[in-house]
Amino acid sequence: MSLLVVGSIAFDSIRTPFGEVEEILGGSATFFSITASWFTSVRVVAVVGEDFEEEHFRVFRDRPIDTLGIEKVPGRTFRWKGEYLGDMSQAHTLDTQLNVFESFVPKIPASYLETEFLFLGNIGPALQLRVRQTLPKLRASALDTMNYWIKGMPEDLAKVLATVEILLINESEARMLSGRDNLKKAAASIRKLGPRFVVIKRGEHGATLFGQNSVFTAPAFPLDQVQDPTGAGDTFAGGFMGHIARTGDLSDSNLRRAVVYGSVMGSFAVEDFGLGRLLRLTPDEIEARFREIKNLTHFDA
Amino acid sequence: MSLLVVGSIAFDSIRTPFGEVEEILGGSATFFSITASWFTSVRVVAVVGEDFEEEHFRVFRDRPIDTLGIEKVPGRTFRWKGEYLGDMSQAHTLDTQLNVFESFVPKIPASYLETEFLFLGNIGPALQLRVRQTLPKLRASALDTMNYWIKGMPEDLAKVLATVEILLINESEARMLSGRDNLKKAAASIRKLGPRFVVIKRGEHGATLFGQNSVFTAPAFPLDQVQDPTGAGDTFAGGFMGHIARTGDLSDSNLRRAVVYGSVMGSFAVEDFGLGRLLRLTPDEIEARFREIKNLTHFDA
Repeated sequence: MSLLVVGSIAFDSIRTPFGEVEEILGGSATFFSITASWFTSVRVVAVVGEDFEEEHFRVFRDRPIDTLGIEKVPGRTFRWKGEYLGDMSQAHTLDTQLNVFESFVPKIPASYLETEFLFLGNIGPALQLRVRQTLPKLRASALDTMNYWIKGMPEDLAKVLATVEILLINESEARMLSGRDNLKKAAASIRKLGPRFVVIKRGEHGATLFGQNSVFTAPAFPLDQVQDPTGAGDTFAGGFMGHIARTGDLSDSNLRRAVVYGSVMGSFAVEDFGLGRLLRLTPDEIEARFREIKNLTHFDA
Repeated sequence: MSLLVVGSIAFDSIRTPFGEVEEILGGSATFFSITASWFTSVRVVAVVGEDFEEEHFRVFRDRPIDTLGIEKVPGRTFRWKGEYLGDMSQAHTLDTQLNVFESFVPKIPASYLETEFLFLGNIGPALQLRVRQTLPKLRASALDTMNYWIKGMPEDLAKVLATVEILLINESEARMLSGRDNLKKAAASIRKLGPRFVVIKRGEHGATLFGQNSVFTAPAFPLDQVQDPTGAGDTFAGGFMGHIARTGDLSDSNLRRAVVYGSVMGSFAVEDFGLGRLLRLTPDEIEARFREIKNLTHFDA
């Protein structure tokens, strides 16, 4: 079924202990859509500048991704420069140039209005709300956010949270949003703000899904080498929402599988810089790693 | 089957956001033996001072724990004072008085010589090696260690590591011991030092078991409230080795269950200060939480 993402498209410059790249394609909408395109067709709403060339559009169009909603405007595309040190658990931002992203107002093409599944990438909550309200046929929307909006725009964030079914959030942000250190209580308190499901992302420690009467934990897939963690969260979201949109099934047991697909896709993302590994995948590799996570967590009760 | 622990017995003074206790019974041998006693009978080798009263011995003897190896010597019992703040992921030591523990030399009673399963709690590696070599009938030994010995006595540690089947170690210590940030590589490199199995403990993120061709990850059980994390690692070890000694089964599938029992027992430990919850348990509660971890990790492939 139809899946739409609204988020950023950026050129990322990244340094990790394993190498360095300059101005490669990144951003939340990019990682999400490329990932979800392994599960279903995807529509993208984002903004780019005049420096965004045909070759960049082609990265999306070579996959089942509709780029009609990628608006090209005067100016330069969003740029981010960051560095990861040691165990690479944290990005250190070296430079951010918002450029055309600074005045981004998502525009939904008429052909997207029937969309059934939505991922609201990490943009201002007022913009997220406007997108959510533009789409009358949604069966489920998921939202990502960050400390900047939690601290700076709590009222706008509360409004959009009240309208979404799923919140994807990392551990420290879940604590900040809820004011609770205990994650189980944090999730319970966030569920009262609107989302029926809260997925707390824990990076190399996996992810936990909190529902009405159910908790599910999936590990991260243990890798020999993490090259570049950039985009892992949006890639997780792409696998998660990609599986949900592909199946159209919002049951607890299917959301558990969706979390595992999120973990699977996140593990591929970090094996190479930028989109490298996500563009080189095969469906068989995805299914094989899904089964490996089954083996990784299986025990006889 | 028979299970022996060598480690510390201490009086702990602990402050957490949830309360404060003074001089309650603690120490690695204490947490381990009380926990493992829910699975099998346990023998303890440790040292205490003259202030260790009959009431303290009775805490052990009320459980199937043989205290013949607890040596009482002139002086005061080991004391530790610590504090946990915020998310309580780290203990801040406020005071350590080694007292009689400073000159602890483990003495193995003759009646313990047939012991088949051994847990070498966190004491000097030369002492651990001596204990390991004193026991001719061992089927498996597990070892705990810490940064202090990894940095300070790497040669002694290498000697004892070469003699044990299982290393239980936390995440940061695994990185320190192996010189590898990547945990999969860290475990592989530690396995070359001797242990067939490496269990990396990740606190609230669970634990991962690395074997020959197998990796298994168990989550921590999500709790509404963590009162006091003291002893969680030794409690994990007590559930893990308790299940192994109870079954006498060193297969991969049984070690997976042992990790889950470790996680189960660790989750009980932190629900109250000190031994509180571990003394109030029932076998049914243990089995119920084991099944809850099964539910927590289950998905249909």
